[in-house]
Amino acid sequence: MIPEIKQPVEEVVTTEQVIKKAVEVICGKWRLVIIHLLREKTLRYGEIKRAVPGISEKVLVHELKQLVELGMVNKQSFGEVPPRVEYSLNEKGRSILPVIDLLLEVGQTFM
Amino acid sequence: MIPEIKQPVEEVVTTEQVIKKAVEVICGKWRLVIIHLLREKTLRYGEIKRAVPGISEKVLVHELKQLVELGMVNKQSFGEVPPRVEYSLNEKGRSILPVIDLLLEVGQTFM
Repeated sequence: MIPEIKQPVEEVVTTEQVIKKAVEVICGKWRLVIIHLLREKTLRYGEIKRAVPGISEKVLVHELKQLVELGMVNKQSFGEVPPRVEYSLNEKGRSILPVIDLLLEVGQTFM
Repeated sequence: MIPEIKQPVEEVVTTEQVIKKAVEVICGKWRLVIIHLLREKTLRYGEIKRAVPGISEKVLVHELKQLVELGMVNKQSFGEVPPRVEYSLNEKGRSILPVIDLLLEVGQTFM
């Protein structure tokens, strides 16, 4: 039996996969907020924490870990006492900035 | 006592609110997939269901309801037997399309 050709459906599936991956990357209550915060400069853990007062310690640690794992943020630890840990946006992380800019425009109409 | 002026912090909070609203609007495993599907034309419930085979009936009904409540999708019911229900993207829903286009670009680099 010759399989039915489902060209349009296959196209939808591929696009669907990319959309779902993008959603996975940018979604999460705090993810874009943290990326936006890091756009100007490298920040220490404490600076991020102070800039996002609504986030719990546990969630912030988890979010930063995920951003590092997704390859968007670089973490640098310095062997100092007290410990100094800095986070910066790398090239992959910067690729999200145009999305944030567009969302800031679009988001206004939903406020 | 004169309250301390916290200009930069206030700016961050506002931007944060807009980002969080935008995330609320676009996030969800299926939301952008459904919006993308409706970009070309109005679709009947069954057509949407067939185009997104991975979604359960319950989740699809819920997602469509939310899209209508958020003001992005218009639902039109026709008094026919069997019942005919059609969904179309309105202007507010269309404002999300540039976000999808950008995410399709950015998403590729994360595949």
